[in-house]
Amino acid sequence: MIKVGIIGSTGYAGGELVRILTGHKEAEIKWYGSRSYIDKKYAQVYQNMFQIVDDKCMDDNMEELSREVDVIFTATPQGLCASLVNEEILSRTKIVDLSADFRIKDVKVYEQWYGITHPTPGYIPEAVYGLCEINREDIRKARLIANPGCYPTCTTLSIYPLLKEGLIAPNTIIVDAKSGTSGAGRGAKVDNLFCEVNENIKAYGVAAHRHTPEIEEQLGYAAGEPLKINFTPHLVPMNRGILITAYASLKKETSYEEVKAAYDKYYASEQFVRVLEQDVCPQTKWVEGSNYVDVNFKLDPRTNRIIMMGAMDNLVKGAAGQAVQNMNLMFGIKESEGLNLVPMFP
Amino acid sequence: MIKVGIIGSTGYAGGELVRILTGHKEAEIKWYGSRSYIDKKYAQVYQNMFQIVDDKCMDDNMEELSREVDVIFTATPQGLCASLVNEEILSRTKIVDLSADFRIKDVKVYEQWYGITHPTPGYIPEAVYGLCEINREDIRKARLIANPGCYPTCTTLSIYPLLKEGLIAPNTIIVDAKSGTSGAGRGAKVDNLFCEVNENIKAYGVAAHRHTPEIEEQLGYAAGEPLKINFTPHLVPMNRGILITAYASLKKETSYEEVKAAYDKYYASEQFVRVLEQDVCPQTKWVEGSNYVDVNFKLDPRTNRIIMMGAMDNLVKGAAGQAVQNMNLMFGIKESEGLNLVPMFP
Amino acid sequence: MIKVGIIGSTGYAGGELVRILTGHKEAEIKWYGSRSYIDKKYAQVYQNMFQIVDDKCMDDNMEELSREVDVIFTATPQGLCASLVNEEILSRTKIVDLSADFRIKDVKVYEQWYGITHPTPGYIPEAVYGLCEINREDIRKARLIANPGCYPTCTTLSIYPLLKEGLIAPNTIIVDAKSGTSGAGRGAKVDNLFCEVNENIKAYGVAAHRHTPEIEEQLGYAAGEPLKINFTPHLVPMNRGILITAYASLKKETSYEEVKAAYDKYYASEQFVRVLEQDVCPQTKWVEGSNYVDVNFKLDPRTNRIIMMGAMDNLVKGAAGQAVQNMNLMFGIKESEGLNLVPMFP
Amino acid sequence: MIKVGIIGSTGYAGGELVRILTGHKEAEIKWYGSRSYIDKKYAQVYQNMFQIVDDKCMDDNMEELSREVDVIFTATPQGLCASLVNEEILSRTKIVDLSADFRIKDVKVYEQWYGITHPTPGYIPEAVYGLCEINREDIRKARLIANPGCYPTCTTLSIYPLLKEGLIAPNTIIVDAKSGTSGAGRGAKVDNLFCEVNENIKAYGVAAHRHTPEIEEQLGYAAGEPLKINFTPHLVPMNRGILITAYASLKKETSYEEVKAAYDKYYASEQFVRVLEQDVCPQTKWVEGSNYVDVNFKLDPRTNRIIMMGAMDNLVKGAAGQAVQNMNLMFGIKESEGLNLVPMFP
Repeated sequence: MIKVGIIGSTGYAGGELVRILTGHKEAEIKWYGSRSYIDKKYAQVYQNMFQIVDDKCMDDNMEELSREVDVIFTATPQGLCASLVNEEILSRTKIVDLSADFRIKDVKVYEQWYGITHPTPGYIPEAVYGLCEINREDIRKARLIANPGCYPTCTTLSIYPLLKEGLIAPNTIIVDAKSGTSGAGRGAKVDNLFCEVNENIKAYGVAAHRHTPEIEEQLGYAAGEPLKINFTPHLVPMNRGILITAYASLKKETSYEEVKAAYDKYYASEQFVRVLEQDVCPQTKWVEGSNYVDVNFKLDPRTNRIIMMGAMDNLVKGAAGQAVQNMNLMFGIKESEGLNLVPMFP
Repeated sequence: MIKVGIIGSTGYAGGELVRILTGHKEAEIKWYGSRSYIDKKYAQVYQNMFQIVDDKCMDDNMEELSREVDVIFTATPQGLCASLVNEEILSRTKIVDLSADFRIKDVKVYEQWYGITHPTPGYIPEAVYGLCEINREDIRKARLIANPGCYPTCTTLSIYPLLKEGLIAPNTIIVDAKSGTSGAGRGAKVDNLFCEVNENIKAYGVAAHRHTPEIEEQLGYAAGEPLKINFTPHLVPMNRGILITAYASLKKETSYEEVKAAYDKYYASEQFVRVLEQDVCPQTKWVEGSNYVDVNFKLDPRTNRIIMMGAMDNLVKGAAGQAVQNMNLMFGIKESEGLNLVPMFP
Repeated sequence: MIKVGIIGSTGYAGGELVRILTGHKEAEIKWYGSRSYIDKKYAQVYQNMFQIVDDKCMDDNMEELSREVDVIFTATPQGLCASLVNEEILSRTKIVDLSADFRIKDVKVYEQWYGITHPTPGYIPEAVYGLCEINREDIRKARLIANPGCYPTCTTLSIYPLLKEGLIAPNTIIVDAKSGTSGAGRGAKVDNLFCEVNENIKAYGVAAHRHTPEIEEQLGYAAGEPLKINFTPHLVPMNRGILITAYASLKKETSYEEVKAAYDKYYASEQFVRVLEQDVCPQTKWVEGSNYVDVNFKLDPRTNRIIMMGAMDNLVKGAAGQAVQNMNLMFGIKESEGLNLVPMFP
Repeated sequence: MIKVGIIGSTGYAGGELVRILTGHKEAEIKWYGSRSYIDKKYAQVYQNMFQIVDDKCMDDNMEELSREVDVIFTATPQGLCASLVNEEILSRTKIVDLSADFRIKDVKVYEQWYGITHPTPGYIPEAVYGLCEINREDIRKARLIANPGCYPTCTTLSIYPLLKEGLIAPNTIIVDAKSGTSGAGRGAKVDNLFCEVNENIKAYGVAAHRHTPEIEEQLGYAAGEPLKINFTPHLVPMNRGILITAYASLKKETSYEEVKAAYDKYYASEQFVRVLEQDVCPQTKWVEGSNYVDVNFKLDPRTNRIIMMGAMDNLVKGAAGQAVQNMNLMFGIKESEGLNLVPMFP
């Protein structure tokens, strides 16, 4: 039984880790960290867990935690994991960091976009970017995983095969993303009140969102060269779900079959990436609550562009689900354990 | 492995049966009945099941179906199950009917409220009302289950202990119910369009809703005498969930502890009925996607009334989940098999 | 031109006052009070007013304000208006207080339910309860209006005629209310975040909501005797709208025509109370953005009860609209000026 | 008083025409056409109009109608207006057609994208494209107005100044659009049911939406040359509102001030186009219920692109509001009459 500690267990991603791990046969949560709710029963914070979880919330003592568990998930704001990690902790326990601290290899880029000084840049090289479908083998051997951001996961998986196969021009990529409101976290802010979000849609972080360099780095690996994209996220009045609509110019005239073959080459044997049938557009509702990413594309010969689409649950494959998938890989158990979640409709 | 056939598998309740049974270890769906989509792949109707269900939709041939499966779920409009059932079928297979056809013991009451003539009233006496927490033993022996309505399930479980213990005056009960829109089904009606339901709330079926006699019958059994209630359902702009708020006059001055003891007497050992802590109000979101009913109450000494509340997912405990729970009981397997669904939040 | 000052202009009710007064031909806002946003442009707080309102937010100086305007609206939390009002201010300006400070005639009841000591109980007797359809003549002469609460407005107008005509038994009244989330205000609280409210419904303040004594007082006047009710509010995932569903026992057998006549007696000539056609249930969407209250009822001979229903926009007739209606009456201008708002659908 | 007839008055755009014209001081609706509800009271179809509109629905007899009214609005599906219009009708009455029949000057393009044969192409040349801010003078003289589509209105107004001023490369334009569900109409379709739309977002009509050629034609006029764009609409779980996010490559390095000056050049004196302050992103909620289009932009020097954003109420400026604005221009009355609608928030 893998012993699990969660730091930040009462945020939305932390809550989703608890939901998923509750159904995981080979893992057991030993530590419900939540600085805001220390000593409060977890099930009083998340009433859905009443009579399911009996534990109380604990503080963030990573030192102590590392002695008690096999793996720590840090579902906390930027900077926290980086400020706590050290060799001693890493020698005793594995870490899956859901924040951005170890996602970007160039620490200057991280510091520029996040506006903070990285306290432990020495661990960046060893951290493995936990996009399971792409870095599976490295993940198996890692002790520190940088769990990918929600937008980067959905975007990278939707575009990756086309860059790998050289079908699209890297610097023409534009990503228009739409996210449910759980992506904004559980902090009490006026902007996230029901009445401000409901019956509304807006772009935010235009040309400035912190996921931009993360996406660029990952897509750059796929392209084999650095690239720059436009990335525009939007806030959608729904709880869960990310949809990305990406545009790129084709390098040359390309048929549906060629593109489909590119997607199938990388995803045909992947359980959690579903390449939809021709002309079926991904919808966030079809993946809600599950670890799937649904991807598809449409060619537009009029403009010589391709439109790529991806839909995902931001809290599952975009956060907690992928984190558990990473844990499964790191511990050598079945990759899908605990993740055979059937999407809930409606 | 229990072989399952579903008639009406593409309605919302049918879809939920598929979702739940997909995760059931001792059952296997053999027949996806759907008169509207015959020969269409099920996963093209419910795209969430893409790469999970490969079957095509079949017609409603109950005769043939009864030769191929061990249990048939009829998730169909009133009258269909009653018109198809016969001794031959029942001799070969068990039936869980999600419609109202066999729920009401007095066929005249059924015919009056539903406005149709019951074609096979002879089976009404043997049909067992499948409210598992109350009729568990009879369910185990049944071959024909009348799966309870969504409102009656939530209402009965919320009030039952107080009537059994004689704490409230039966004819003072008023039930004000609120339901998500999936309860209205997947039929294409203007009234159920997004723009008509969203940002709106209304009562419907006031003093005339068909679940009224079903609730009265069940509560009457608990009270040990016939009773009449007021029942007013409301349509709420959300997909899933039923909340009932019920009012009744106390027979005598009663303490919190006495009432709590009454609830605990009947539910302390029930997995799927959660009696919440004092002053915590049930919320539909806390049970979404799960088979739980959360109940609680509040005494009002000013008026000598008690307010009883219950929250439930109308498609799970209110339909498909309870149907599977009934199946589990009928086949002698673990009652919770396939139903350890953790509520999804947010 | 009536010069208007608003204290608390950046709450939801305050914002609605601005929206309505912007279209009012005989009033002009001179003071946008908002302690939280002093010196910030109002249109930067409420971007909908961009290029419509150019003013900046001001502080809460009621002394100064009373010299500059003819009427002050206080759309502020309980206690503020009561703590600021004095004879000098009232001698110079009229006040419409949207808080509860002057609604309840018995100061002990106020202090008990609100848990605060009333600083200026001496003004309670002169304050007029601004339910325009009922207290119109007193309002015309008032200098201090206690603008009714949202739930009390909808509830009182829905039940009033039946009590006045003696058709229902006062102590049998049960009010089950449902409100959109703007009623919870614009404060940044976790409970009001989009993800907590969306796809959810719950009761709150059960048997303890502060609007209870206000409703009881008003209904008591109608009944001609004190009464006690049960009042249970619910939070609904929509921005605007209140629906109340009320239950009461009929004193004797009563026909549809008798009840309809009672409603018509009081409301036939009222512009803002619409008695719907038989069997049409009020819906909040049908009054959204307008000053209407839609009421209707249904008799249930089975239980000898009547179900009364009322729908209203909580921010208009439930707050800002009624406040303007009161102002119009106080200043002797057309009661409907600025209030001919056509409900917006969808 | 302008006498108005509406064909298709019970669709969402038709209903919005009624809402707006009810508050219009110089127009009066004489004919509520609705083939589906002939002889039914209008206020029974749209209950919000109870006690406001007393008329009954009429059929679609344009011949007769043209004798009774000064202007006809056709808020009907494609092909209807084109099939009914003739010289006699146009000699008696003005027509504002809310369908696409006369929007596209090249009839072959119309027939190709809409898949129908245009019955009266002879009227295409004289029809004026009713985008008021751009074609104001021609509209004043017109007798047949092609009222612009919702997406084309929002898109064209958001991009127009940059093309006119030659700041962006025409063939690099990509438009990612998001619409509330009222844009899908009031037809009873499964895809538009509450449970299918709520908690969901999807693209539709990818690379194939019929508004594409209309946008291309209008942007082509601005650019002074034909152009091709990508246009991808998405369905958002909200009633009203369109947000477009458009991307284009800058022809040369351009400053914020230069772009702002371009917008101001065309819109500084326009009431209904609001160019927002720097870094403020348009939100659909800020324009809900009003005739405003809020536009803004963001430069991305990293990619040398500009991101243009526009938000609008699809039923007002995107349909009925603009139709009334066109009527006002055609009849020489104040352009904003009936349209000083303050956006409703929340």
